[in-house]
Amino acid sequence: MSRKPLVRPGGRSARVQESVHEAVRALTSEVGRDALTVPLVAARAGVTPSTIYRRWGDLQELLSDVAVERLRPETPPGDHGGLAADLTAWAEEFLEEMSSPPGRAYIRDALLGDPDGTNAGQCSAYAAEQIDVMLDRAGARGEPVPDAETVIDRVVAPMMYRILFRRGRLDASYARRLVTGLLADQDS
Amino acid sequence: MSRKPLVRPGGRSARVQESVHEAVRALTSEVGRDALTVPLVAARAGVTPSTIYRRWGDLQELLSDVAVERLRPETPPGDHGGLAADLTAWAEEFLEEMSSPPGRAYIRDALLGDPDGTNAGQCSAYAAEQIDVMLDRAGARGEPVPDAETVIDRVVAPMMYRILFRRGRLDASYARRLVTGLLADQDS
Repeated sequence: MSRKPLVRPGGRSARVQESVHEAVRALTSEVGRDALTVPLVAARAGVTPSTIYRRWGDLQELLSDVAVERLRPETPPGDHGGLAADLTAWAEEFLEEMSSPPGRAYIRDALLGDPDGTNAGQCSAYAAEQIDVMLDRAGARGEPVPDAETVIDRVVAPMMYRILFRRGRLDASYARRLVTGLLADQDS
Repeated sequence: MSRKPLVRPGGRSARVQESVHEAVRALTSEVGRDALTVPLVAARAGVTPSTIYRRWGDLQELLSDVAVERLRPETPPGDHGGLAADLTAWAEEFLEEMSSPPGRAYIRDALLGDPDGTNAGQCSAYAAEQIDVMLDRAGARGEPVPDAETVIDRVVAPMMYRILFRRGRLDASYARRLVTGLLADQDS
């Protein structure tokens, strides 16, 4: 967001960001998300409320930034020896994480305090990067490789749509069906 | 939402709902969405603020209800003589409406003030109903008919995912490609 200054790793701005994010995470588990306020977060982080308002605008934008950090994948997708196995394992794990109560809360926060779409775009970029890793690996193995955008449309989009718009239970077999359907249609 | 009483058409509760929704719509175009407050809406609707708080909880939940009303389709999908033509025309129109600035704002509002997912579910139900109409019509014509959930996964979900998570321009050719891809894979 244009309000935020560029963050130089290790600089003052990065230290402020880290302590404010950490304060949000700690307070969320101590008092719950609904009890968070900017003054409470500022006191815990050891900054003034105006530092938070100046940098993030409001609590919702701060929560959106924290959520995107939480949604960042920590490791590259596992290598299971073939594209079908890689995509299936990744999709199952993605669905399990994103449809869990904390996952849903992070997605909501990421979307809501994000007037210009930067954070939502970042969430999508994380998924696209993971998919690229799997597709590159499959290409190197000599497997036929679908287009990354097609994997987004056929696997990621349906899972996220159902997480956001449908209340039914989503299980691993749904993730598997999406991957199987995509790869079967690529072959035909 | 459990807080809201059941609304009997024509009853006092329905009249309150209609005048409050109308006040939100009028004030949104007069002063803009960001300037709305519960007291302002209450004054315009001729009710007390506590009526609004009691029924909707807060402004966000009220805006979510108004957004869902705006997202309700006004007419059944057009009959263009065949499933491919019907689905294509419907998807093009859906994408155009939902990706417009007001469409995006309504989707955001619908998701945002909706802690239990009722309103998001209603948005999805509207799309599912329109799809059912087209599939029933195709079945009556003797055409092969995909599963409604598959149409959601292959056509609705990718459009909504990209509206929410990607900032690139979405045009009618994207909607057409989704429908063409779905129907081609059904045939194979």
